[in-house]
Amino acid sequence: MITVALAKGALLKDSVARFAIAGLDFSSILDPDNRQLMVLSSCGRARALLVRNGDVPVYVAYGQAQLGIVGYDVLKEHQMPVAHLADLEFGGCRMAVAVKESSGYKRASDLPPHCRVASKFTNCAREFFDALDLPVELVHLTGSVELGPLTGIAEAIVDLVATGRTLRDNGLVSIEDLFHSTARLVGHPLSLRLDSGDLQQIVDNVRSLDIQINK
Amino acid sequence: MITVALAKGALLKDSVARFAIAGLDFSSILDPDNRQLMVLSSCGRARALLVRNGDVPVYVAYGQAQLGIVGYDVLKEHQMPVAHLADLEFGGCRMAVAVKESSGYKRASDLPPHCRVASKFTNCAREFFDALDLPVELVHLTGSVELGPLTGIAEAIVDLVATGRTLRDNGLVSIEDLFHSTARLVGHPLSLRLDSGDLQQIVDNVRSLDIQINK
Repeated sequence: MITVALAKGALLKDSVARFAIAGLDFSSILDPDNRQLMVLSSCGRARALLVRNGDVPVYVAYGQAQLGIVGYDVLKEHQMPVAHLADLEFGGCRMAVAVKESSGYKRASDLPPHCRVASKFTNCAREFFDALDLPVELVHLTGSVELGPLTGIAEAIVDLVATGRTLRDNGLVSIEDLFHSTARLVGHPLSLRLDSGDLQQIVDNVRSLDIQINK
Repeated sequence: MITVALAKGALLKDSVARFAIAGLDFSSILDPDNRQLMVLSSCGRARALLVRNGDVPVYVAYGQAQLGIVGYDVLKEHQMPVAHLADLEFGGCRMAVAVKESSGYKRASDLPPHCRVASKFTNCAREFFDALDLPVELVHLTGSVELGPLTGIAEAIVDLVATGRTLRDNGLVSIEDLFHSTARLVGHPLSLRLDSGDLQQIVDNVRSLDIQINK
């Protein structure tokens, strides 16, 4: 049986829609009353695991799920050994450096050396500031990163920005983007190589919408 | 102004009650309509930061909060440089090894060497299995760890157990405890040393209930 890992939250609805194109109907997972973390497709050929964003590449890397849909931000931060199969182009957001609006900083290189930067994505942030040759002290937080500049624990933050509302509500402004992130289809490399046909067919169908768009 | 870091979730109500004993009323944070992550005490002498469990010791270690209340499990997992001031004896739960009920394992040492163990608390788990001289492969998950044995990604899990209902609902049973966890009052070491009186008074008051109980 094919198992797919789906991320809870903002990507879920579109992820379910993509697998529906491939003939796998997991829409019961979207039912507000659903409390199950593992659901069968209506055809009974596949199951979906409903897990946290960061756990999608873990389940796929260990082969407990052959396919998964997860944001590029998570793939970049955690670097698990999974095959990147397609950019599904939904769930768009950007990883950005943000500071207090009153700070006067206009770009990341304006930040003072050795200042503190808070983030949930400290690997992405380290790579970015290393490339800038700007030494900063990274403070790893697990949530509400926008509190960082307000409390004084950090002068800047690196965080995902979708609409920008959270930044505005907290008097913050983004000054530079690290990268743009969208939902990606990932797969377990060995399962893809050993596949007798079904898996590749599903991958092709999930990707088909992008192919139509790009034609 | 004194800043205290409070953990969102199960410990919040009792944490607010403890600071109320010390004359700092943060009850507005409990209002279901409250969306602010930073609230002033009604007397205006102090403010509370509402952050994730794992971020409480970070804010206290950096001195952005002089005091905080957080579970012992978090302190043990993350090992931040904060002063442990009191065991507040609420929010009790245990860190336990759990397996499928059908597995037949009765204690942790029954697990096969090199089996996989999933946990959010991989540092605690590593220390425990190292002390047992049992080599295991730890799989770090960020949520829904109880899915581990069901999906086959892990034979056992190490997780916090309060009522045991989540385990039962998933056909799991705990076979050994790593430690018991309760809420702890922690402080920023330098702030405590430089304190001119107020901070120690608050610490004494927050602890007073335990002193009365233990008399």
